[in-house]
Amino acid sequence: MDDDSPEARWGQRTEIPLFAASLVFLAAYATRVLATSVAPFWRGLCGFVLLALWVAFAVDYVVRWRLSGQRFLRFVTTHFLLTIVVVLPLLRPLRIVPLYDVIQRRQGEPRLSLYARVIAYASLSTLLLGFSGALATYQQERGAPGATMKTFGDAVWWAASTLTTVGYGDITPVTRLGRVIATGMMACGVGLLGAVTGSFSSWLMQTFYREGDERPPGK
Amino acid sequence: MDDDSPEARWGQRTEIPLFAASLVFLAAYATRVLATSVAPFWRGLCGFVLLALWVAFAVDYVVRWRLSGQRFLRFVTTHFLLTIVVVLPLLRPLRIVPLYDVIQRRQGEPRLSLYARVIAYASLSTLLLGFSGALATYQQERGAPGATMKTFGDAVWWAASTLTTVGYGDITPVTRLGRVIATGMMACGVGLLGAVTGSFSSWLMQTFYREGDERPPGK
Amino acid sequence: MDDDSPEARWGQRTEIPLFAASLVFLAAYATRVLATSVAPFWRGLCGFVLLALWVAFAVDYVVRWRLSGQRFLRFVTTHFLLTIVVVLPLLRPLRIVPLYDVIQRRQGEPRLSLYARVIAYASLSTLLLGFSGALATYQQERGAPGATMKTFGDAVWWAASTLTTVGYGDITPVTRLGRVIATGMMACGVGLLGAVTGSFSSWLMQTFYREGDERPPGK
Amino acid sequence: MDDDSPEARWGQRTEIPLFAASLVFLAAYATRVLATSVAPFWRGLCGFVLLALWVAFAVDYVVRWRLSGQRFLRFVTTHFLLTIVVVLPLLRPLRIVPLYDVIQRRQGEPRLSLYARVIAYASLSTLLLGFSGALATYQQERGAPGATMKTFGDAVWWAASTLTTVGYGDITPVTRLGRVIATGMMACGVGLLGAVTGSFSSWLMQTFYREGDERPPGK
Repeated sequence: MDDDSPEARWGQRTEIPLFAASLVFLAAYATRVLATSVAPFWRGLCGFVLLALWVAFAVDYVVRWRLSGQRFLRFVTTHFLLTIVVVLPLLRPLRIVPLYDVIQRRQGEPRLSLYARVIAYASLSTLLLGFSGALATYQQERGAPGATMKTFGDAVWWAASTLTTVGYGDITPVTRLGRVIATGMMACGVGLLGAVTGSFSSWLMQTFYREGDERPPGK
Repeated sequence: MDDDSPEARWGQRTEIPLFAASLVFLAAYATRVLATSVAPFWRGLCGFVLLALWVAFAVDYVVRWRLSGQRFLRFVTTHFLLTIVVVLPLLRPLRIVPLYDVIQRRQGEPRLSLYARVIAYASLSTLLLGFSGALATYQQERGAPGATMKTFGDAVWWAASTLTTVGYGDITPVTRLGRVIATGMMACGVGLLGAVTGSFSSWLMQTFYREGDERPPGK
Repeated sequence: MDDDSPEARWGQRTEIPLFAASLVFLAAYATRVLATSVAPFWRGLCGFVLLALWVAFAVDYVVRWRLSGQRFLRFVTTHFLLTIVVVLPLLRPLRIVPLYDVIQRRQGEPRLSLYARVIAYASLSTLLLGFSGALATYQQERGAPGATMKTFGDAVWWAASTLTTVGYGDITPVTRLGRVIATGMMACGVGLLGAVTGSFSSWLMQTFYREGDERPPGK
Repeated sequence: MDDDSPEARWGQRTEIPLFAASLVFLAAYATRVLATSVAPFWRGLCGFVLLALWVAFAVDYVVRWRLSGQRFLRFVTTHFLLTIVVVLPLLRPLRIVPLYDVIQRRQGEPRLSLYARVIAYASLSTLLLGFSGALATYQQERGAPGATMKTFGDAVWWAASTLTTVGYGDITPVTRLGRVIATGMMACGVGLLGAVTGSFSSWLMQTFYREGDERPPGK
């Protein structure tokens, strides 16, 4: 992507406010799901905020598509993460990588090392996925007949055991939509394992070669 | 394998119709297992289609063996995937890799990158394995005394938790054949984890070396 | 290890008969555990065979140690696998790697590739560990109060879900010794995952570099 | 870190006694949790020892920070392991890596190979994490209503199934703090899997290249 293209300039200007909006979205959703005892007015307000932000995200998506000058199907493929976070706006904070790029370029700071970025991103994604997934699954399971997930604490505990692929099974979703979300989280758990393992593996390879280089040539 | 050998030419001509046949096989099997309320005539038709397609697959296997001019045991070893999908025809859509090769050669399009191929193949295999495994296990478990897998939705949910090695255990097969299929799926789950992890690991290594190359030589 | 050292020559002569003895050991143990309805005479015979073979394994260990001329503690460290299979003779078929070396050297055949060897060894080890572990755990659990592992089929099913780290939990050991064996099997399961993942990862790396080499130099 | 800096010299002098203190801490904590039938005097003594050692660890931390001359936040980042083991002193034996460095430098012995160090450290960390985690979780769960973790043996068995990501679910924590500790242990289990897999993967890569080098050049 050319840095001076209209699309890139649009991204540079909107990435930060939209990231803030995504955090507001997450907070509004959490309020709506967890704060069951607040007055209906506030719950309605949360619903309105959620809708308004989703419209904003969709407008941003369409503007980026028009600016890119690509066919729609090709845009979807080349902007895979963007498409996912428009469909599932709870995951929009995953856009932290482009946000980091924008901030880092603006301030001219040196980039973190590849490992630091992978580890930081994997950790943040896991926390975000666990929290959003627990919220969304809890909303489905709450009050379902035969549900074992009774409190939000249960939902967080279940999310942790799912994302690490431990899977105790003391608490499991029983509703159809809850299980669909859970399947997505399992797939992310496998990816997370892959990220951790892959990082460790390549760090070890790299350390090995560096140690090899440090030895005297006569060895 | 020489591209002009009789075996290769046979493959080029039969790969596409046999792939279509394998999808019909999967659909007929799914109909037979899931559509329990249809008239006996249609179930019988499905059974007939399954048998006919299996014979077609077996004929293809024998023809390929004769054309290859190899001893049978050697042919089995060198055509491992082909042998598996003849014994377990539900998995025949896994032949999508040779299919892709045939189509790509015919149309002269450039190949996808190694990562794109590994990721696409791992995802498709997982979906196929999950669906076929859920179908086959459900067929065994349905009606077994003490079974926890009561609907096909349960079977799909169980398959997802098995292939990702999460393994909640809220739903588990209790019949002998169901457990044999499940053991095969667990082994595939381990392989899937290996594919995801290995892809990530080598992608990271590659990115690392590329970043290393981009640095100015004075570094 | 020098190929003409007394220890190496002892190994070349004893590896094949001891491997056969290890299979007899496994069969005798399986008979003793599973064939509960045979006459006491045959069970006693199995017990005698087990004892006699264990003595033979121990004698082989001591002879190798004396021939090696090393201090005992050092011998234990450098012959780690040998020490394990003397303490746990059920796992002695794991000595198939030295056996393969002996046979391959005698017949002058070319060695299998590294991947073929790793995959073959990981598969055989998993089968052996699963079978021995299921046998040993079943012997502990059989008849224990509150045991969920009621038949040998249950034990094999439990072993499969443990070695793949799926861990349904529908069947779990409840006795102290059964749990100790299970913990060992979990550790092996993690190692198995590591072997599969590591093989896939390095195969992918290697394929990637080979594809890189195949491209025309002008690329 | 410069070897002659005040901080390094402080580390060289205090690492060994503090490591011994960390083992005493672990023993005192285990006594306090497990020895429920001893006289109150001895339990009080254990509590006093725990408090005194924690103060000693905190003093060491502050001294190292002052000697380093860094701002506090930067010190926390660059001494991540040190910070963790001050907050969770049960894990202080993880400081065995700096201890090994100090001893090895003092005695001038050659270092172990990278793989030996990674494997030894991963094994020791797993044992330590399993033991400490089982102790801490058992302390929370003991006597909680509806707890499935009834004895310390249960806690160790649960810890093994958690750290290997098997996760049977026959025993699971039900208290809030117990689940927080468990989540930390799951994360460590994922890291452990990564370490094992990564080691195996890079060992395989290295063996592959070495075998490649051993072939005659004409190949």
